[in-house]
Amino acid sequence: MNTLLLDSDAVDEHAQLAAVIDAVEEAFGAFERGDTQMPAKSYIELPQYNGDFRSMPAYLDTGDWDAAGVKWVNVHPDNPAEHDLPTVLGTMIYSDPETAFPLAIMDGTMLTMKRTGAAAAVATDYLALEDASSLGIVGAGVQSYTQLEAISEVRQLEEVVVADQDEERVQRFVETYEDRFDVRGGSISEAGHCDVLSTVTPVRDPIVGSDDVGEHTHINAIGADAAGKHELADDLLQAARIVIDDHEQCTHSGEINVPYGEGVLTDEDIYAEIGELVVGAKDGRTAETGVTVFDSTGLAIQDVAAARVVYENASDADDGYAFGMIDTSQR
Amino acid sequence: MNTLLLDSDAVDEHAQLAAVIDAVEEAFGAFERGDTQMPAKSYIELPQYNGDFRSMPAYLDTGDWDAAGVKWVNVHPDNPAEHDLPTVLGTMIYSDPETAFPLAIMDGTMLTMKRTGAAAAVATDYLALEDASSLGIVGAGVQSYTQLEAISEVRQLEEVVVADQDEERVQRFVETYEDRFDVRGGSISEAGHCDVLSTVTPVRDPIVGSDDVGEHTHINAIGADAAGKHELADDLLQAARIVIDDHEQCTHSGEINVPYGEGVLTDEDIYAEIGELVVGAKDGRTAETGVTVFDSTGLAIQDVAAARVVYENASDADDGYAFGMIDTSQR
Repeated sequence: MNTLLLDSDAVDEHAQLAAVIDAVEEAFGAFERGDTQMPAKSYIELPQYNGDFRSMPAYLDTGDWDAAGVKWVNVHPDNPAEHDLPTVLGTMIYSDPETAFPLAIMDGTMLTMKRTGAAAAVATDYLALEDASSLGIVGAGVQSYTQLEAISEVRQLEEVVVADQDEERVQRFVETYEDRFDVRGGSISEAGHCDVLSTVTPVRDPIVGSDDVGEHTHINAIGADAAGKHELADDLLQAARIVIDDHEQCTHSGEINVPYGEGVLTDEDIYAEIGELVVGAKDGRTAETGVTVFDSTGLAIQDVAAARVVYENASDADDGYAFGMIDTSQR
Repeated sequence: MNTLLLDSDAVDEHAQLAAVIDAVEEAFGAFERGDTQMPAKSYIELPQYNGDFRSMPAYLDTGDWDAAGVKWVNVHPDNPAEHDLPTVLGTMIYSDPETAFPLAIMDGTMLTMKRTGAAAAVATDYLALEDASSLGIVGAGVQSYTQLEAISEVRQLEEVVVADQDEERVQRFVETYEDRFDVRGGSISEAGHCDVLSTVTPVRDPIVGSDDVGEHTHINAIGADAAGKHELADDLLQAARIVIDDHEQCTHSGEINVPYGEGVLTDEDIYAEIGELVVGAKDGRTAETGVTVFDSTGLAIQDVAAARVVYENASDADDGYAFGMIDTSQR
């Protein structure tokens, strides 16, 4: 038996966003129903290299399908400057839960971008105006691309405004999408007054204030992924309807971790977990709903769900490199 | 940059036991000195498939070298009968700790056998008679082969006795090694009266009694890997000098877990962790020492140390399949 090896181009091609969005939505539903196993991320801290490793194993059962795997990923901020490598390098092992056979091993970096965009799209579908047609993005790094691509799957986007201090990154983003959207650079406030806003920056001091968003803006807060990071001002969060992906992760390392830790926000201020919207236990946007915020920290089940899409599509297309890694004749 | 893919044949070829034994010994020493990180194994339990997954991340720094990685492994006992697959299927990702780049992905099943044999060899070197020349093995399954191969690196073996209820397995073992050793099938007691004994069975009721071993036999107790499993009778353990690999793992799932849980053995009965022998904090065998037992549960740092040997050797030999999994141009 072979294990399918899929590089970043293959993951990019086969992580078709419409399918990944569906899979991630089903994963959130399974999480809400208690049909997932997601041991706490294991960290290896390497202060001598200013980095860390994280091991993210997970299993989920949606009722229609189940899937298992582990993502091995890191954060090494010195990589770009010192080693000409990305800060984050992920590897995903996707396994058959029935036999544990490793069906596929794939680039986990591209996978992470896809599943993160897909999570924002799921939240946007439940929380943005039905006729939302404008998307603002704060931060024009690698994650911004899959935000636009995924959210454009759930809303008919006409106008896109991207804000970043780095003009080159804005230019690159605009050039990538100007054939498909009315896309331009703009201020944070211009981006924030779109119907949907995604924030994808690593800042530790909030850069989006309450005056920077519209009355009905839905915000996907993506950037915060560690204690001390947040992108949105406290008063913006306090006035908004807050939906999280996971209580433990969000209160420790998500957008709300700082105000939650300071007591500025409490559990009373958290409207729902995204899975509750998916299974219908709580309503998404209604006519009166004002500003909404989705605090996305990224769950291991999203990686497994997205990996399943990639594996199934790549297998069907006979793509990837089939590698006989394990000698299955051993007993 | 490429990731080196190594199948079971490549791992077999490049996990040269003399080097793996040295690496595992250094890993035990680093563990004793506190220069390792080994988060608790994360389990995913799949009772519907009678199986589980385990995620085993680790980092170690021996002073001369450091290494990191994760093994994703399982136990699915129905695999052989129902799926024509091994019970255990491992995949190892070996990463550069400085950048987190995945240097190699390799078959973790073969790797596990090698590092387990190597651990027994390290313990045998510290605990068996200097002139030990006979090895008994109880259980002629896949692990028995690397026991003989590894232990023969540290002692000049002349006689080998293998005990197993399955005559075919005994025959296969004998045929594999009859050119190199005086090897024959025999009873458990005949195996146990050798200078060194390795037990590699999955039994839950002890099969080696105190009368089954010699006065100076060193025993490598390998088989127990879950609560409830043990191979050696309580009175044999009580009379022996017991060395463990890790207190937490051994008392929960190692050879001593049952009598320890029942209070038959206490911490007073544990002589040392193997790392204490390696760093010289405690003596190995002395003239008076009688029966010794090494309780080997298998540490994630052993996998990482062995993976390093495989990667370095395979790289030097220009072996394996170089795969451009990750697009390192992304920032």
